[in-house]
Parts: sequence; structure tokens; C-alpha cells
Amino acid sequence: MNIAPNLAVTRPTEAVLLAKWAQNVKRSQLQEILFAAAKPGIISFAMGLPDPELFPVKGLIRASRQVLASDSLALQYGPPFQPLKSRIVELMAKRKVVCREEQIFITTGAQQGMNLLARLLLEPGGQVLTEEMIYTGFQQVIEPYAPRVLSVPTDVRAGIDVAVVASLLARGACPAFIYAISSGHNPLAVSLTEAKRLQLVELARQYRIPIIEDDPYGFLNYGDEALPPLRAYDDQWVFYVGSFSKILTPALRVGWLVVPESLVPKLSVVKEASDIDTNTFTQRLISRFLEQEDIDLHLSMLRREYRARRDAMAQALREHFPAAAKWESPDHGVFFWVDLPYKVDTLALLDSALEKERVAFIPGQAFGVEPSNRATNCMRLNFSHSNPSLIREGIARVGKLVKEVLNRI
Amino acid sequence: MNIAPNLAVTRPTEAVLLAKWAQNVKRSQLQEILFAAAKPGIISFAMGLPDPELFPVKGLIRASRQVLASDSLALQYGPPFQPLKSRIVELMAKRKVVCREEQIFITTGAQQGMNLLARLLLEPGGQVLTEEMIYTGFQQVIEPYAPRVLSVPTDVRAGIDVAVVASLLARGACPAFIYAISSGHNPLAVSLTEAKRLQLVELARQYRIPIIEDDPYGFLNYGDEALPPLRAYDDQWVFYVGSFSKILTPALRVGWLVVPESLVPKLSVVKEASDIDTNTFTQRLISRFLEQEDIDLHLSMLRREYRARRDAMAQALREHFPAAAKWESPDHGVFFWVDLPYKVDTLALLDSALEKERVAFIPGQAFGVEPSNRATNCMRLNFSHSNPSLIREGIARVGKLVKEVLNRI
Repeated sequence: MNIAPNLAVTRPTEAVLLAKWAQNVKRSQLQEILFAAAKPGIISFAMGLPDPELFPVKGLIRASRQVLASDSLALQYGPPFQPLKSRIVELMAKRKVVCREEQIFITTGAQQGMNLLARLLLEPGGQVLTEEMIYTGFQQVIEPYAPRVLSVPTDVRAGIDVAVVASLLARGACPAFIYAISSGHNPLAVSLTEAKRLQLVELARQYRIPIIEDDPYGFLNYGDEALPPLRAYDDQWVFYVGSFSKILTPALRVGWLVVPESLVPKLSVVKEASDIDTNTFTQRLISRFLEQEDIDLHLSMLRREYRARRDAMAQALREHFPAAAKWESPDHGVFFWVDLPYKVDTLALLDSALEKERVAFIPGQAFGVEPSNRATNCMRLNFSHSNPSLIREGIARVGKLVKEVLNRI
Repeated sequence: MNIAPNLAVTRPTEAVLLAKWAQNVKRSQLQEILFAAAKPGIISFAMGLPDPELFPVKGLIRASRQVLASDSLALQYGPPFQPLKSRIVELMAKRKVVCREEQIFITTGAQQGMNLLARLLLEPGGQVLTEEMIYTGFQQVIEPYAPRVLSVPTDVRAGIDVAVVASLLARGACPAFIYAISSGHNPLAVSLTEAKRLQLVELARQYRIPIIEDDPYGFLNYGDEALPPLRAYDDQWVFYVGSFSKILTPALRVGWLVVPESLVPKLSVVKEASDIDTNTFTQRLISRFLEQEDIDLHLSMLRREYRARRDAMAQALREHFPAAAKWESPDHGVFFWVDLPYKVDTLALLDSALEKERVAFIPGQAFGVEPSNRATNCMRLNFSHSNPSLIREGIARVGKLVKEVLNRI
């Protein structure tokens, strides 16, 4: 402990000295707009929120009462709740994933799951491979590491450009991991074709690079049968991130990872450092709910309701948006991705949409990983949060604005 | 995106490549022992657990039922729950801390609060000032930053050696922050004298170095009147970390920070990246509980119960431990710190305590921040988790072992 005077650094006269990366941390312009817009009366297609009307409240109240009344450990610190792991193994089987309880790691929501994996895998300044347009929460996870981001394009009908991934890896790229949303992409709404799933997993195996597969929408499929997640094709190189937020309720903050068993002890150390343990009460509540309620019935109901909303939004887009607008009707997830003529600046459009029409959405440029905002003419529209009648009303209002903009130009 | 072949690194043939710091991450020998010891029938003085018998279960069930039945936002994603902030301001006033709702930041437990502050304040390789023996959870928080730890000694009757802190700072040390547990120190059981509180805060002001004040046991005081936390003496340079875990229940994973208002927007960005938001349901549950139950009555009951357990442990230590054992009866918190003759190795003692006597405690060396384990003859004993009769029984068993060891040497 020999502190030489030259260790002293100059401090600003007024404020606390923050770590360098944190000095510029602030809400983005977009976040400020959306924060201000979170008011009653706004039709919001902005966030990826489920509809509280569809939460299984009665079953949750029943489970909550039973857990609190009967289980004295439900309010104490505690290790991961083993019966919940069993329930998760059963859930994963519905997605055609074969796994064991020893491969399940319970987290305080999926966002924490991604953080823990990044913490274990990513060096400061290390490489990460992802798509050019991607979930902002993932970008927040890697930001403190100041990583070198290798970004690849995405085909909005088929998913991540696997050929570019292959080419990068062949040329020596060595990312700590590949980040992928295989079903119901956020924000691009696409699901990977089976061929691409197989190719991507094969690349992971060949180059021994793990894939972090983020699958919050995996259970929300609207076609006849959903393709299995990447984890179904490989149990060593795909680290699966699962969430109860979109299939039960987001409030309970419980998610899970499916990882090779060897990673679990390391994850448990990083997890303990993060927040000690995952809420022992809500773990038991969810486990009890899954034991005594019919989750298949609940999932069918969600798929039916969200499918109707998807169809209402597709119909409204056809009716109210200009013919030049391009979009695919998603067979998974909770978003539409709409591509407008290049002259439409969707960030400016959001301003007038909020002010004049009281409708919110997310401008495409929010999702770009490169500083050059390539999607200034795009928007992400959520269809899970509003009922069909609000969807029709909201899309009509935004469509009118888009047409006005195009007529003015 | 020009990836030169020389970016390739050599990968191990079998395993996933982890970040360097994570390659050696594993449970410690001690954690393995305690993990194996978490069985029924063990009298545990090891962890800092509250007693589930003292949880206000009825009030929590009532509040839970009301929140789930009446508040449709209780299960949705959501911003921090404003009424809970008001309740926390009122709680802080009981500790003589004057603060405003705008200075309260709600976290997924106190452990997350520490992580968020470290994330904002600490550079990789930066300096941190703390005591030689300190809460292991704090050591885990800073470990990924590979910090330079400036450690100072602690007087077990008066607290952190403020003169050494002053000397380090005068000689040019420039830590990102000072970490301090002012009341009911973990593991040393000491509470800072008022003079030391004033001196430490004055140093923080003078050198413009924030103090992270970790105060999980602040409300658990057993003397006539508790000293206020450091935050009561300064609202700019003390960042307070609060917790409901020891005063209500740990399961709900809700804690809070009291910080200068200017830090809140930055904290909210780092928080969102960590786990989106704090459980909206348990935030409302706690807020409702605090509104309709008598928290002062509950805290009095806890203090009365824990005071009786402290006294039972003091009495048992006097009766069953050798006269050479040194300890202070704590007026705050949930621990005793016992100093045995140097010849007693408490890690070895733990092994036989578990095997022969079925009693657990934490050996002192677990808490050392320096690799040289200076407290191999010390142990931390928790008195909040076991009732007085178990305390007497457990201390008698450990005391017998300690005497056997001393007789053998």
C-alpha cells in the first residue's frame, strides 16, 4: 500500500468523478420522447409490452396465496428453486429442446441472463458478432465493455445473413459470441428459416463460438408449427435465454438460461455478485402456477389473441399506409417492421405522431448498432399491447401522417 | 468491418473461451463447505439470515392480495413506483436522514445497488478504498474491475481507522469511492463512533471522494438510540445503500439508494441495462405493506427479539468459550466477531464443527481483502437466524471444540 503522489488525478471542481464510459451515459433523445409520451390517452405501438388484460391474474392470485401461506422458505434468501427448473425443462420440451435441470440457470429476468453471459464471455474491447439492427437492451448489455461490434445484415424475410457470418469467421473474426434472436426478431420481426438455423449452429460448432440465443417470443408463434430454437440443434454451443415476461407477466422478473452444465457454477458466482439470488417468492409463485394451471391453454389463448391483433394490424397497414410501405406479416413475436420511402424520417414523424395524433412507435434508427443510422425511414410497431380496435385506430392515424409527409415532399 | 486474419486467437480445443477474469471464477473452498452444510439439522451461525419466524407474513399476504386484485399495473413492466419512494423517504427520516423522492433510486436489492454505483464510478483497474476485513459481497462487486484495493485497518470497538484514510488521501490516493458500513459492520460487528462518522464525511467532502455507505442493518439497533448513518451528515458525498431484506423479508429483492439527484438519470440507464426494471409487483406489495401496517411496531419487535438473541449469544460465549476469546457485544446488526488465540485455525475448526457438532459459522479469513489471511484465528457468528435456545446449544458445542483444540496444542 505505497501510494505515490503521482497517483492523484485531477478532479472536476463540482461533480463526482464517474468512470469514463459513464460520463456520457444519459437517456437518448428517443428515450426522452418516449418517457414523456408514457401518458394515458396515447395509443402506444412503441414498447414490446404484453397486454395486462391477458395476464392470468386469477391463477397468479391463487398461486401467490398458496405459496405465502404454506411455504416458510418463500420469503427467505434461497438457492434456485428446484421444482421451477423441472417446470422449465417441461416448457423447453414444448419448443422441442431436450435439456436437463442441471443445465437450467434461473435469472432475474432475461435481461440479467444476457448480462451474466456477457460478463463471463466478453473481455473489455473484445469482439461481438450481431446484426446491424438489433434489440437495444442487448446493445446496452455490451456497451460497458466497449466491444468491437462485427455487424451483419439481415434479410427481413429469412433472417441474419449467414453467408456474411461465415465469411467473417473464415477471415479470422473471433467474437466472444454471436448474438441471435431466431424467432420473432426484435426489431425486424423475421424468424430464421430452418436452413439458416442449421447453418448458423454449424458455424458455431465449426469455429467453437457460442451463440447467445435470445428467445423471449419463442412461445408466441402464429403459424401451424413453430421451428425449434437454435438450442434444439446443439447443446454445447448455443446458450439459450428464456423469459416468462411475454408468456405470463413481466412483473415477476424471472427468466432462465439453458447452458452447458459446466457453466452453471461460474454463472452462480456472477449471479450472486449481481443480486444475491432470484426472488424466492416469485420463483415459487411461477412454479406453483405452472403446476396447477393449464399453461397450454393459456399459451393457445395468447396465440389466438395476438394472432388476431397481428391480422388487425396487417389489415390496417394495407388500408391506411401508402402502397410504397413495405412490411412482412410476422409469424412469431409481437412486432411489425415497416419500411417507408427513404424520404420519410421516422424520428421526425414520431414527434408529430405524438403531438398531433397521440400515437407512439419506435423509429428504426433506434436499433442500429452502427453510428450511421441506416433505418431512418423505418419503424417498429408493436401489436401485442393494444386491442384490435385501438390498433386500427392508431394505424389509421399514423398512416394519415405518413401520407401527408409524402405529399409534402 | 475489415477483419484481418491476425485477429484470430487460439481457442482451447474443448471448452468455451471465457473472459480472462472469469476463467478462474469458482466457488471458494469455504463456499463449497457451506453449500454442503446447508442441510436441516445444522445450527447455522454462518449466513446473515433473518429468522423466517419473524417475517410479517400476515401483513404481506394481505398486501399481496390487495395489490394483485386491485392494481392492473402491478404485473406489467413499469417505472419505479412513486409511492414506494415516499415510503422510503419516511423510513429514512426515522434514521434522521433528510431526503427527497427525487434522490431515491429503487433497486433489485441492495447488492444490485452497490453494483450500479460501482458501474458508474469505477474504471477497470481503478482504486477503491475499503477496510481490511469486509463483506464478501462487496468484494465480489469490485472483482471484475480488477481494482487496486487500498485497505485500511479497523478498530473493533470504534470502526474504520480514519487516520489511515486521511493519510492515504493526503499522500495522493484517489479512490473512485470509499466503501463503508457505518452501523453493525459485516463482519466486524462494530459501529462507527460519532467522531469517526464526522471525520470520515469531512474527508469525503475535502477530497471530493464519494462514500458508498452500505446500511442493511441500520434499523437493527439495540442501544437506547442509534447514531444516524453517514448520509445524515452529507447529502452530496455519501451514497446510501438501503435494504428491506433484514427489516421485512429478503425474498422480495427490493432495495434503494439515496444519491444526489443528478446521478438518478445515469443510474436508470445502467439499471435498465441490468434487468429492465425492479419487480413492479413486490415494489407495490412493500409500499402497500408500509402504508397499512405499523412498521414501527414491527421494527420494535425485531429489535427486542434480536437483542434477546444477542444477549443469549454473549452469555453463551462467556460460559462456553475460553477466557482468551475476545469479542464485543454489538449494539447494531446481526453478528459477533470472535477473536481466538492465534493457534486456533478457524477454517479447520469449521470442518470439525460441521462434522462432529453440526454447527456452522464463517471463518474470519473469508473476509480479508488481502491475500495474506490475517484473521485465521477469528470467526463471524450470526445471531439473528437462530432462536436463543439454539444459540445456547450451538455456542456450547463450538466452545467445546475450541477448548479441545487449545488443549491439544
